[in-house]
Amino acid sequence: MSAPQRGYLMPVGGAEDKTTRRIILNHFVQLSGGEQARLVVIPSASAFADDLGQSYCRIFTELGAAAVDCLNIQNRRQANAPELLPLFQKATGVFMTGGDQVKLVTLLGGTLIAEMLSCRYLEGMNIAGTSAGASAMSRHMIAFGRSGGTPSQRMVQLAPGLALTDRFIVDQHFRQRDRLGRLMTAVAFNPAMIGVGIDEDTAFVIAPDDTYQVIGSGSVTVVDGREMEYTNIHSVPRHNPISVVGMKVHMLTNGDRLHQLNYRVG
Amino acid sequence: MSAPQRGYLMPVGGAEDKTTRRIILNHFVQLSGGEQARLVVIPSASAFADDLGQSYCRIFTELGAAAVDCLNIQNRRQANAPELLPLFQKATGVFMTGGDQVKLVTLLGGTLIAEMLSCRYLEGMNIAGTSAGASAMSRHMIAFGRSGGTPSQRMVQLAPGLALTDRFIVDQHFRQRDRLGRLMTAVAFNPAMIGVGIDEDTAFVIAPDDTYQVIGSGSVTVVDGREMEYTNIHSVPRHNPISVVGMKVHMLTNGDRLHQLNYRVG
Repeated sequence: MSAPQRGYLMPVGGAEDKTTRRIILNHFVQLSGGEQARLVVIPSASAFADDLGQSYCRIFTELGAAAVDCLNIQNRRQANAPELLPLFQKATGVFMTGGDQVKLVTLLGGTLIAEMLSCRYLEGMNIAGTSAGASAMSRHMIAFGRSGGTPSQRMVQLAPGLALTDRFIVDQHFRQRDRLGRLMTAVAFNPAMIGVGIDEDTAFVIAPDDTYQVIGSGSVTVVDGREMEYTNIHSVPRHNPISVVGMKVHMLTNGDRLHQLNYRVG
Repeated sequence: MSAPQRGYLMPVGGAEDKTTRRIILNHFVQLSGGEQARLVVIPSASAFADDLGQSYCRIFTELGAAAVDCLNIQNRRQANAPELLPLFQKATGVFMTGGDQVKLVTLLGGTLIAEMLSCRYLEGMNIAGTSAGASAMSRHMIAFGRSGGTPSQRMVQLAPGLALTDRFIVDQHFRQRDRLGRLMTAVAFNPAMIGVGIDEDTAFVIAPDDTYQVIGSGSVTVVDGREMEYTNIHSVPRHNPISVVGMKVHMLTNGDRLHQLNYRVG
């Protein structure tokens, strides 16, 4: 018997099409079993969690999922309730909505749900997240930051995320909010990292075999620090621009695949 | 044949005694083999790396180590030189000096040396670091921050560190620089984390069997977020103080041991 294969991880850049072709949301339903899909929506990041959760549940039902549950966790006690275990044991996919990734991680970090997400993902359950839900997937999560194209020393604040991926630092609403500077800053701190900046209505699909594919109407900007030669981020005065030499950047669009990033994920 | 046991990890809070009893530095030499110890000093974090490196080399030689090499890496090309492999293959301990942890990690992150540190640590090599060298051990590293006892939203900046420990966020010069606020803030972001605030001339010794011991003249403050019930860190305006409910705090001094933190390390 072979070891179980982990699931798909699908960060989405926010504002994905919910009304017309719904390519991204449909892709998630299909990956998770189509008519056999059993989905859990976690809207906890949002300030309007109930409404948002119901609205995703309706969409996933329209797209043909067999079962969709909305799990609106709003305190840490709920996130530790053992009654939740069967729900996750049966789920084929979990979708985390937008909102505030810091709110999401302070609610879920170190709880039973965070544990279930990691374990079940390794056993084959898929996890998608949009906007805040995408950011929270990173082990090194962008908590907040400033806009702008030029990296500068204190423009990005990192925090420990849900750690579904180790090496990718996910950013979202990427071109819409002009976030190249903060993503490059995040990667410059430790060039072992790879930044993934996802535009709105765009997803970066991380497959179990460590191949990566872009789907949707925007781009994904990959900032790869592995061959970085130099940065002065440690020595510039606090909010000043920093120098970065040798960072590799890829711009990917719908259908593009990356097979050879050669990095462990998960 | 049993799997190799990992080494000791020994973060030190900075300003350890270098001239009189040298308890901490001597402890490191003894853990690393005493008269058989083969040590590598990495002074790269420092702005005066050559002098500082030589000074530690002299001390470790006086304390009886069989061999001590100073490896003053000052650019990423040096950190990727394959000629360094034999040095690490023979070393029984590596010591990282103080200076600036961001400088250290931008030099070493993703290089051959970072890889060797992780691999050889898992195979039994010990790693000590003081001040910046201690901070850099964390996977979620405190890059910089503000002093003060009250946690507030943007008082701490985290960055991806060398990841020798997953769950401990190490802080140093802890009481001397009044850093409880920033450590609690770091843990509040994701309560799965445990903060370890180490005073000057004090070490937190992480043994291969996941027991922990304090040595030295100061204290270690452990901030354990696992049972945290609530925080409003996501919703307060940027530099305002935050609420944190249910954080557990331990204050430990010389000789204290913790056996039951129940956390995976490494």
